[in-house]
Amino acid sequence: MEKPKEAIAMASSSYSRLTPPEVPVELHVNNRKKLVNSLRHHLSLSSRPLHGFVFLQGGDEQTRYDTDHIELFRQESYFAYLFGVREPGFYGAIDIASGNSILFAPRLPPDYAVWMGEIKTLSYFKERYMVSMVCYTDEIFGVIHDQYQGSGKPLLFLLHGLNTDSDKFSKPAEFQGMDKFETDLTTLHPILTECRVIKSDLELSLIQFANDISSEAHVEVMRKVRVGMKEYQLESIFLHHTYMYGGCRHCSYTCICATGENGAVLHYGHAAAPNDRTLENGDMALLDMGAEYHFYGSDITCSFPVNGKFTSDQAIIYNAVLHAHNAVISTMKPGVCWVDMHLLAEKTILQSLRKAGIIVGNVDDMMVERLGAVFMPHGLGHFLGIDTHDPGGYLKGKERPKEPGLRSLRTARELQEGMVITVEPGCYFIDALLVPAMESSNTGRFFNHEVINKYKSFGGVRIESDVLVTVNGCKNMTKCPREIWEIEAVMAGSPWPLNEVTISSEHGGG
Amino acid sequence: MEKPKEAIAMASSSYSRLTPPEVPVELHVNNRKKLVNSLRHHLSLSSRPLHGFVFLQGGDEQTRYDTDHIELFRQESYFAYLFGVREPGFYGAIDIASGNSILFAPRLPPDYAVWMGEIKTLSYFKERYMVSMVCYTDEIFGVIHDQYQGSGKPLLFLLHGLNTDSDKFSKPAEFQGMDKFETDLTTLHPILTECRVIKSDLELSLIQFANDISSEAHVEVMRKVRVGMKEYQLESIFLHHTYMYGGCRHCSYTCICATGENGAVLHYGHAAAPNDRTLENGDMALLDMGAEYHFYGSDITCSFPVNGKFTSDQAIIYNAVLHAHNAVISTMKPGVCWVDMHLLAEKTILQSLRKAGIIVGNVDDMMVERLGAVFMPHGLGHFLGIDTHDPGGYLKGKERPKEPGLRSLRTARELQEGMVITVEPGCYFIDALLVPAMESSNTGRFFNHEVINKYKSFGGVRIESDVLVTVNGCKNMTKCPREIWEIEAVMAGSPWPLNEVTISSEHGGG
Ligand SMILES: [Mn+2]
Ligand SMILES: [Mn+2]
Repeated sequence: MEKPKEAIAMASSSYSRLTPPEVPVELHVNNRKKLVNSLRHHLSLSSRPLHGFVFLQGGDEQTRYDTDHIELFRQESYFAYLFGVREPGFYGAIDIASGNSILFAPRLPPDYAVWMGEIKTLSYFKERYMVSMVCYTDEIFGVIHDQYQGSGKPLLFLLHGLNTDSDKFSKPAEFQGMDKFETDLTTLHPILTECRVIKSDLELSLIQFANDISSEAHVEVMRKVRVGMKEYQLESIFLHHTYMYGGCRHCSYTCICATGENGAVLHYGHAAAPNDRTLENGDMALLDMGAEYHFYGSDITCSFPVNGKFTSDQAIIYNAVLHAHNAVISTMKPGVCWVDMHLLAEKTILQSLRKAGIIVGNVDDMMVERLGAVFMPHGLGHFLGIDTHDPGGYLKGKERPKEPGLRSLRTARELQEGMVITVEPGCYFIDALLVPAMESSNTGRFFNHEVINKYKSFGGVRIESDVLVTVNGCKNMTKCPREIWEIEAVMAGSPWPLNEVTISSEHGGG
Repeated sequence: MEKPKEAIAMASSSYSRLTPPEVPVELHVNNRKKLVNSLRHHLSLSSRPLHGFVFLQGGDEQTRYDTDHIELFRQESYFAYLFGVREPGFYGAIDIASGNSILFAPRLPPDYAVWMGEIKTLSYFKERYMVSMVCYTDEIFGVIHDQYQGSGKPLLFLLHGLNTDSDKFSKPAEFQGMDKFETDLTTLHPILTECRVIKSDLELSLIQFANDISSEAHVEVMRKVRVGMKEYQLESIFLHHTYMYGGCRHCSYTCICATGENGAVLHYGHAAAPNDRTLENGDMALLDMGAEYHFYGSDITCSFPVNGKFTSDQAIIYNAVLHAHNAVISTMKPGVCWVDMHLLAEKTILQSLRKAGIIVGNVDDMMVERLGAVFMPHGLGHFLGIDTHDPGGYLKGKERPKEPGLRSLRTARELQEGMVITVEPGCYFIDALLVPAMESSNTGRFFNHEVINKYKSFGGVRIESDVLVTVNGCKNMTKCPREIWEIEAVMAGSPWPLNEVTISSEHGGG
């Protein structure tokens, strides 16, 4: 008889040093506590009574168009944050007075047991999700009324607010009989969103795991990439590694596997541009891929030449971006403004391009003319958590910058300890931006037309890491080869992380 | 410099003998011609004028809840059938008088080129999708009016009808100015659905490829399965194989990777039962997984012991199902009623269970009491095409059978040449059905309680193939190991298909 544990080790040891960690349910218990404390504090400040219920509706399964094809369900992110429930059709309430949490589960028909699986008891859910009480969704009205300790109609704090990335509003919970309650649509959203902005240690451990398995998968892709492959094969290798060895069924976002000039398409990889190009010798690859583990995500970009050796032209652009990436990370700490980090990245890139003779003139003049946004039209980075573009980037009333590049920033806030934010500078050769800029009377003079033409079909480079702001600095949670010599070594078969011996021999005794 | 072609062969030769085929756009041209001919014929029969436009709206990209997380777009199936368009946001029209086809593409903002990729010209789409004309969606009103050759308001045939699997209605196209047209909501749906029921040779070649790559992936899983692995690792191996070597980005449906007693959960694998059990020695695995290639799908189930060797108890159930599978396929031909095939499968299974002493008594009596539905509560099979549960299973006015088992049939039609239908008999030990049946005064007498208790945590066996009805019989498009000796040989490392030498030595000189 085989021993299960050995079989796991055998099946995976040569490919991964990781195994999916246990998920502590306390993570969500703590998230709820944090919200209740924040809410109470807020209510006290405005002398409002400390009662009522936070009341959220979880997500529902969706079918495709008119068919019975069920899309794989993924819980709504605010609901996931507070309750960690993986099943569709739930509601959840938190009693602000007592701090008690109540989940409402859908009452399933008896034949669910035949088609979908065992019908779990309410006490199963109570234990699994560590809440005070579980009832059925058809009991919401009565249960909330029973639990209510205030006078008059019970007050429900519903989730309604703007997502500043999508410009869409979250949908407040709805159920039969809601007209018998008072509702508050304005208080909850900003407070709950702010709770999500600052990550707890338990949240960080999941984001770290998503980073670890995704970093490893990026290395796996680097090792297996060959001229002649299709871009989607790199996606497939990544997805397989993170699911097979990391148990990550979902990705944080659709994989961007751009090679050659596709590297200049910032959100390449969607259905109309589906990672279907054949890799050619001399191409750069720009791979933006991140796995999600128990709702918490990662967002990582690696750029490298598909044949494993940087040309000097490629090295110029790559190092320009790497210096920007490193300059930002060395500067990040609480109190630093994210807009300044964006400008720092831009300036670092422009300085490198100028040094290489691609652009000419005074870098400060270039900054005034927003030349950086021609090469990096996107923002430097965004909050990361249960959503890839985690909410809270703009506090209410705070306006978005208007200038090119800066207006694409998903946050313009000051950094605080516990924020996780992506640092993803890039340098792209995008005809739709470059041609007008080269023809413009304001910016035309900055370009060395002859040299820049060499980069016509170059595509682009992006280097993206997920960075935690710490008490007096920051910590890079992403562990991919970043230096050119590291990438070339790993692509040539060296282990990763490079061990001491490898480092000293490859890096000239460093 | 590396040669791309050799690199592809090198990277994939040891794993797959397949490469993704070119997709002939004529497939969709022919689908449109078929529809126009059918519609004209129908209109002639009812003495209606042969003009007006078939008018469909393609699918749109969806975001997740209030976020900007974009779900990977998959075209709506009727639109995919007629136009093969992979991009979101299109409309399509077919002029019944001339047979001309017009696509309407969304007018994209200039910064689409920066974020999403090159803005394709209208002539690009005209050539790619082989239509007569491509305009923008904001030109629908004028273009249709211009093209119209009849008198009065132009007539639009819109898609509105019931999907008999989901019980939902397709959503008729909507656009600004539609009130200036006559619309017909009843004619198109049944005629277009019936076109989809009978597959063309070009459609069949894609379904065959989806079957080939999925069959190969099932074999890959059989080879790699080990006690101690997680169910989702089998899913990951399957997904990787079909994407890496088959270019299949989508699956036909969420993978069902059920082991042990999960095999008794017919639609296992969804978010609330997410393929997360650890494989144990002695388990049966029931893996229902199928890839999709250019919209056309496959739907394949293999069942086998995870340790590679059938016990005699497992072999009894497996062979009962295999005999049913084979009996149905040997009987299928045009004119045969699908309900009779379901009953044939049931009866074959009951006979085997009786022979093994699991049930006792007269099989005809069992059939009268619908005992078959206790062991196989689902229908024998369904149409397969662009949807896994392809539409057209019930012609208008045709009632669904009411009896247990039969009422789950997704079609009760007579077979016709060109139909593709799954043959998926199964035998499950489902407590929720078995316990009441054993206690019932009508069916209790049929059970050998002592023997059946051995199967308490057995789970189930399903064997599912995709079968094309031919002029005088049928063709099994699925190419998986099915006989016990074939499965054991492949799991022990034999090549698949088994070559002649292997067959004669393993199968006792057959
Ligand atoms: Mn990012
Ligand atoms: Mn099926």
